[in-house]
Amino acid sequence: MSEPDKSEDIPDEPAGKGIPNGGNAAKSKEDFDLASIYVSDAQYNRNIYFDTSPEAVKLYIRYNHWIPKVILFFFILVDLSLAIFEKPAVFPVPTLYTMLVELLCLLVFTLRLVHYAKVIPRDKFWKDPKNICIIVILLTVVDLIIYESLEAANCYAVRWSRVLRPLLLVNVTEGRQLRRAFRSIRNALPQIFYVFLLFMFSLLIFSLMALKLLGKRCGLKTIDGAPYFTNYLEIVFDLYVLVTTANSPDVMMPAYNASFVFAIFFILYILINTYIFMSVFLAVVYNNYKKYLKEEVRQLVRAKRHKMVRAFAVLQEQRAEGGEPVVSQANWNQIVKLVQPDISNAHRELLWSKVAFVQLADLLNIEVITLKSRPHPLQRACPAFYLSAPSRLLCRLVQHRAFVILYDLIILVNAVFIGLDEENPLIANSEWVFLALYLLEILLKLYVFEPRAFFSRHSFWNWFDTVIVISALIATVVNSAMTSSQNYTSRQILDIVFILRVLRLIRVVDSIKRFRAIINTLIRIGPAILTFGQLIIVVYYIFAMVGMELFKGKVRSFEDDSSDPTKAYCGNPLLKGTTFAQLNYCKNNFNNVVSSFILLVELTVVNQWHDILDGFAAVTHVSAKLFFILFHIMVVIVIINIFVAFVLEAFFVEYSVDKSDLQTSLEKKIEELELAVAQYTDSVGSVDQRKDTNFRHFNT
Amino acid sequence: MSEPDKSEDIPDEPAGKGIPNGGNAAKSKEDFDLASIYVSDAQYNRNIYFDTSPEAVKLYIRYNHWIPKVILFFFILVDLSLAIFEKPAVFPVPTLYTMLVELLCLLVFTLRLVHYAKVIPRDKFWKDPKNICIIVILLTVVDLIIYESLEAANCYAVRWSRVLRPLLLVNVTEGRQLRRAFRSIRNALPQIFYVFLLFMFSLLIFSLMALKLLGKRCGLKTIDGAPYFTNYLEIVFDLYVLVTTANSPDVMMPAYNASFVFAIFFILYILINTYIFMSVFLAVVYNNYKKYLKEEVRQLVRAKRHKMVRAFAVLQEQRAEGGEPVVSQANWNQIVKLVQPDISNAHRELLWSKVAFVQLADLLNIEVITLKSRPHPLQRACPAFYLSAPSRLLCRLVQHRAFVILYDLIILVNAVFIGLDEENPLIANSEWVFLALYLLEILLKLYVFEPRAFFSRHSFWNWFDTVIVISALIATVVNSAMTSSQNYTSRQILDIVFILRVLRLIRVVDSIKRFRAIINTLIRIGPAILTFGQLIIVVYYIFAMVGMELFKGKVRSFEDDSSDPTKAYCGNPLLKGTTFAQLNYCKNNFNNVVSSFILLVELTVVNQWHDILDGFAAVTHVSAKLFFILFHIMVVIVIINIFVAFVLEAFFVEYSVDKSDLQTSLEKKIEELELAVAQYTDSVGSVDQRKDTNFRHFNT
Repeated sequence: MSEPDKSEDIPDEPAGKGIPNGGNAAKSKEDFDLASIYVSDAQYNRNIYFDTSPEAVKLYIRYNHWIPKVILFFFILVDLSLAIFEKPAVFPVPTLYTMLVELLCLLVFTLRLVHYAKVIPRDKFWKDPKNICIIVILLTVVDLIIYESLEAANCYAVRWSRVLRPLLLVNVTEGRQLRRAFRSIRNALPQIFYVFLLFMFSLLIFSLMALKLLGKRCGLKTIDGAPYFTNYLEIVFDLYVLVTTANSPDVMMPAYNASFVFAIFFILYILINTYIFMSVFLAVVYNNYKKYLKEEVRQLVRAKRHKMVRAFAVLQEQRAEGGEPVVSQANWNQIVKLVQPDISNAHRELLWSKVAFVQLADLLNIEVITLKSRPHPLQRACPAFYLSAPSRLLCRLVQHRAFVILYDLIILVNAVFIGLDEENPLIANSEWVFLALYLLEILLKLYVFEPRAFFSRHSFWNWFDTVIVISALIATVVNSAMTSSQNYTSRQILDIVFILRVLRLIRVVDSIKRFRAIINTLIRIGPAILTFGQLIIVVYYIFAMVGMELFKGKVRSFEDDSSDPTKAYCGNPLLKGTTFAQLNYCKNNFNNVVSSFILLVELTVVNQWHDILDGFAAVTHVSAKLFFILFHIMVVIVIINIFVAFVLEAFFVEYSVDKSDLQTSLEKKIEELELAVAQYTDSVGSVDQRKDTNFRHFNT
Repeated sequence: MSEPDKSEDIPDEPAGKGIPNGGNAAKSKEDFDLASIYVSDAQYNRNIYFDTSPEAVKLYIRYNHWIPKVILFFFILVDLSLAIFEKPAVFPVPTLYTMLVELLCLLVFTLRLVHYAKVIPRDKFWKDPKNICIIVILLTVVDLIIYESLEAANCYAVRWSRVLRPLLLVNVTEGRQLRRAFRSIRNALPQIFYVFLLFMFSLLIFSLMALKLLGKRCGLKTIDGAPYFTNYLEIVFDLYVLVTTANSPDVMMPAYNASFVFAIFFILYILINTYIFMSVFLAVVYNNYKKYLKEEVRQLVRAKRHKMVRAFAVLQEQRAEGGEPVVSQANWNQIVKLVQPDISNAHRELLWSKVAFVQLADLLNIEVITLKSRPHPLQRACPAFYLSAPSRLLCRLVQHRAFVILYDLIILVNAVFIGLDEENPLIANSEWVFLALYLLEILLKLYVFEPRAFFSRHSFWNWFDTVIVISALIATVVNSAMTSSQNYTSRQILDIVFILRVLRLIRVVDSIKRFRAIINTLIRIGPAILTFGQLIIVVYYIFAMVGMELFKGKVRSFEDDSSDPTKAYCGNPLLKGTTFAQLNYCKNNFNNVVSSFILLVELTVVNQWHDILDGFAAVTHVSAKLFFILFHIMVVIVIINIFVAFVLEAFFVEYSVDKSDLQTSLEKKIEELELAVAQYTDSVGSVDQRKDTNFRHFNT
C-alpha cells in the first residue's frame, strides 16, 4: 500500500491493510505496534512513508530508537570534525588515520541508509530527495580514492568532497527542521533576487555617477596617495562596501575634503542603498520566510491529523450496530503506554477524561504541572517537624518578597566585590561568604518548595542557579586546593571561577518583571536559534572548506614573541604595506578550520571586511574578492536577515499573546489545537467535518 | 460652545449654535462657510477647535489660506538657516544682521499666533500644548537680549536658545504629522527603555567578564602598544562600540592573537548584543510605533467623521415631517464648490451620485481618472489627419511592446557610451543623438497619449523622463555654447550634464514589471519619508547646535594645498598621533552647521565613530563621549529603527494587498473608508449606528 505524500489531500476513507475494520475483534500486538507508531510519528512530526507490513513496522520502531540516532549524530559530528585533523590541520594527523575514520563514518551512514531502505517501500525509497546522501557517500569514496592515488603519485590533490559533508547533516531523516529552513530560504530566493538586481542596478548607476563626477576631477587622491575613483570596477566595489558601512566615512573623505557638495552624493547613496535597500531586503526575506513557514506548519498539522486518523482506524471498534466507532479505554491505555512508557497513571487518566483521540499526540508532549500541589517529601517523612511553627515561619520568610530583594542586594554587593582587585586577601576570602550565601539560598528553597517542582523542566532559573553555584563551588575548591598544596594557580581553572562568578550576577534580571518577559521570549526562541545555528554552520562549513583550498598558507600568523623578520607582513611579501598587515590581521586566515570559522564570523559582522578582502586579494588575485562578496550576499543579506526576521516574529507573537500566563500550558495547547483543527476542517471541507465526530470517544 | 477633544467620545446629539436644525429655511452664507470649513478640516485632517461665531469662522478661513502658511514656513526655514550665518558660520555675517532677521522671524511667528488666538476660544488657546511656541519666542527674545549685552560687555556668551528653534517647526499648526511621529516615539520610549536597561546589564556583565579574563592576563597589548582591557569603563565603551560593529575585529585581535578561545567570548558577545539585542530593539520599536500610530489613525478617522456630522447638521433639512434629514443637491453643489473651487462638473456629479455625505471629505482628495477616455486634442482639432491610416499606424507602433524594448536598448547603448571617455569627439557628439532620440520619444508619446493623462499627478515616470530630458537638453546647450564661445567649460554645468545623463538610465527599471512593483512601493512611501526627514532634521539640528557650542574650533580643517605645519594634526597638538588625525578626519568637525550635519550623518552610519569620538574626547574631555553616545542611542537605536520599521510596514502592506491594481483608486478608497466606518461603529456602539443613516442622502 502507498502512503500519501504530505502534500496530497487526505483520502476520503481511512485505509488500512488487514485491519478488522469496525469489528469488535481483540487487537493483535501488530495492531498496537502500528497504531503506536502512527501516534509517535504524529507526536514527533515524522514524515516517513514506512511499509505497514508487521516486519517493516518492527524495523521502523527500531529505526526510531534513540540509540541508532545518537550513534548517527555522533558519526556526523566526527565526520564534520575531521576538518580539524585534515590538512590544513589544527592538530595534524597522518592522512591515513583521518581516511580510515572517514570510511568508518561512511560505513555507519550506509548502514543507516540500508535500514531506512528496508523500512519504506522500494519505489518510495528511490524517489526520496533525502537520498542525495547516497550520492554524497559515493562521491566521497571516489574522492578518497582519487586523492589517495594522486598523493601516492606525489601530485597536487584536492579533497573536494569535503564541501559535501554538511549535506549529510541536512539530509539525514532527523534533519527535518534544518531541511524546512533551507526550503524556506530556497522559496524566498526569487523575490530576494529581484530586489538584489534592483539594488545592483542602483549600485551601478551611482558608480557611474561617481566615476563621472569624481574620477575626472583634477587629482583627488585617497589617503594612501592612490588615484581616487578612477576605475569603474573599483568604484563599484568601494560603493558595495559602503553599503555595509565598513568603509564609511573613509571612502567619502577625499571628495568631502575637496567640497562639501560631494558629501551630499554619498549621503544620498547611503540613504538609498544602506537604509532603504537593506530594509527592503529584510522586508522581503521576512515576508517570504514567514509565508513559506506558515505553509509548512499547515502541512505539518494536516499530516499529523492524518496519522491520527490511521491510528484510530487501527484501534477502532463498533460498539453497537450502526453506532459510531470508538476506542475502548483498555486499548487507549495500552497505546498510551506503548508510546510513552514512563507516563504516570494520573496523567493518563487526565488525558482519557479530557482529550479527544486526535489530540493525543500533541498532548503527550506536554509536561503536566500537577506536581505543584504535591506535598513536600519532608512533610510526608516527618510532618510534626515540617509543620511546626518555626518551620512554617521559615517557609513564609523564604517565600516573602523581602527574601528576593535581600538576595538581589547580595548579588549587587557581590558584583562590586568582583570588580575590585582579587589580589586583596579580604576580597579573595569574601568569595567563600558569597558562595555559602548562594548555597544557603538553594537549600532554603529546596526546603520550602517541592524538589521535583523546583527542578521541573521549565524552571530555567532554578536550574541555572543550581548549576552555576555548584560548579563555582567545585571550581573554587579545586583552585584553592591547587594553590595551597602546590603553590600553583591554574589559569584555566581561575578563568572558569571568574566566569562562573560573573554568570551568577545574571540571576538578578529574573527578579525584575519587565526583564523576565523579555528574557523568557529569548529563552523560548532558544531551540529555534539552535536550528538556525545548524543552518549557519552548514553554510560556514562549505565556505570554510572552499576558503581553505583557495587561501591556505597564503597568510601566516606568528606568536607574539616570535622574532621572524617576516612577521610584520604576515610572512607574505605581497602583504607589505597593506592595511591588512598594518592592522596585524595575520591571524585572520584560512590556515585551519578554526581560523576559517572565526574569520567567517568576522566577515559576517562585516566591519573592516574590505581590508581583509584586500589582503586576500593581494596574496592571490583580485577575483578572490568574488568569494567574499558571494559569502556576504549569502550570509549577511539572506541568512542574517532571516535570523532578524525570526527574532522579530518571536517578539511580535509574544506581544500579541501577552497576558495569557494564567492559563496552564495544557489548556493553552488544547485551545491551540482546536484552533488548528477548526482552521484545517475549514480548508478541507465537509468530508472531514464528518470524520471529526469519529474521533470523539466516550467515557465508558 | 466647546469643541470636543479628539480623544473624547462623540456626543449623542450633533451640537450647533444658531443652526436652524431640521427646518427647511434657506441656508445663509455663514452656514455654508461653517459647513465648508468642517468639510475641509475633515479633508485635510485639521484638528483645530475654532470658535463657530461667523467672525471667527471668517478669520479661520483666512488662517487656513495657503499664503500665510507658505509665509510661515518660509520664515521657519529662514530662522533655521540662520545657523549658516551665525558664529560659527559657513558665511560669516555681522551678528546685528542675523539678529534683525531673527527678530523679523519672531514677529511673523507672533502674528501667526495672534491670528490663531483670535480663531479659537480663549480657554482652549491657553490649554493648547502647541503654544509652547510662545515660550520659545519669549526665551529667544530673552536670549537675544542677554547675548547682545554680554557681547557688548565683551563677555563669553552662548546663544542657547538656538537649540529651541526646531520646536517651532514641530509646534506650528501645520506640523501635525511631525507631532504625531514624535508622540509615537514618546509613547514607545518606556518599552525601549526596558530593553535598553537589559542590554546595558548584558554589556556590563560582559565587560566585567572581559576585565577578569583579559585585563589580568600577562601583558596583552593593543596594536598601539597600550594596555589591553584593563580599565572597566574603557572596556564598557569598547564593547558598546563593538555592538555597532565599528571596531570589529580590531578590538578582538589582541585577545585572539593570544588564544583562539577568547574569540569565542567575542563571538558570543556579538551574537547576543549585536544580533539578538539589536533585533529586539527593532521589534520593540516596530511594535510600539505601529500600535500607537494605529491608535492615532483611529482617532483621526473618528475626528473626521465627527466633523462631517457637524457639517451635515449645518446643512441638513427635513423633507417630510418625521422623515430623515437630508442635504439637497443645490446645497451639496454649493458646499463642494466652496471646498474645492476647481472641481469639474463631471467629478461633482460623480460624487453626488455615488457617495454618502460622510465620505465626501476623503473623496475630494482623490483624483478621478476619467481623463483617460478623453479624446486627444489633435483628434478634436484635426480628426481627418489624426485618424488617418499612417497616424493610426504610428499610434499602434508607439504603443507596441517593441517600442519599449527598442528604447531600453537605446538606454543600454547610452550607458556604455557614458562609461567611455567623453574626451573622444565621436562620443561627445553621440550625446546629441541620444538627446534627440529621447526627445523624439517624449514627442511621440505626447502625440499618441492624451497630454493631460500623460502628465497626470500619478504618472511619476512620465514626469521624470520629461524633466530629466529637457533639463539635460538645456544644460548641454548651455555647456556647448559656453565651450564654443569662450573656450571655457564650467565644471558645475558639466557636472549637472553628467548627473542628468546618468539619471536618464534609471528609466529602464520601469520597463521591468518586478522592478516596477518595488519602485512603486518606494515612491508611495516617499511622502512619509519626508515627514521622517523633518523628524531627523529636528534631532540633528538640536545636536548640531549643542555640538557647535561644545566643539567649535577644536578641530581645524585645511585646504588640500595648504602648507600649514599643523595640518597633519588638524591644527590641534592634542590630536598628534591619534587615529583621527591619521585618517585625515580634520573636516569632520563642528565648526559650522554644514560640517556638523555631515558629521552627524557619519555618526548615524556608525562606522569609525569611535575614532571620531576619540578625536573629540582628545581635544576636550573624556566626558565628551557621552554626547556622542546619547546621539547614538537617540538616532541609531530609536529613530533609524523607526525608519526601518516604517519601510518594513510599507512592504508588508504592499505584499498583503498585491493584486488589487485592477481597482480604480476611487473604488479602493471607498472600500477603505467603509472598512474604517464599520470598524468605527463597532467601537462606538449603537448611538452612531443610528446616526449613520442620517448621512445617507437621496438623489432627488
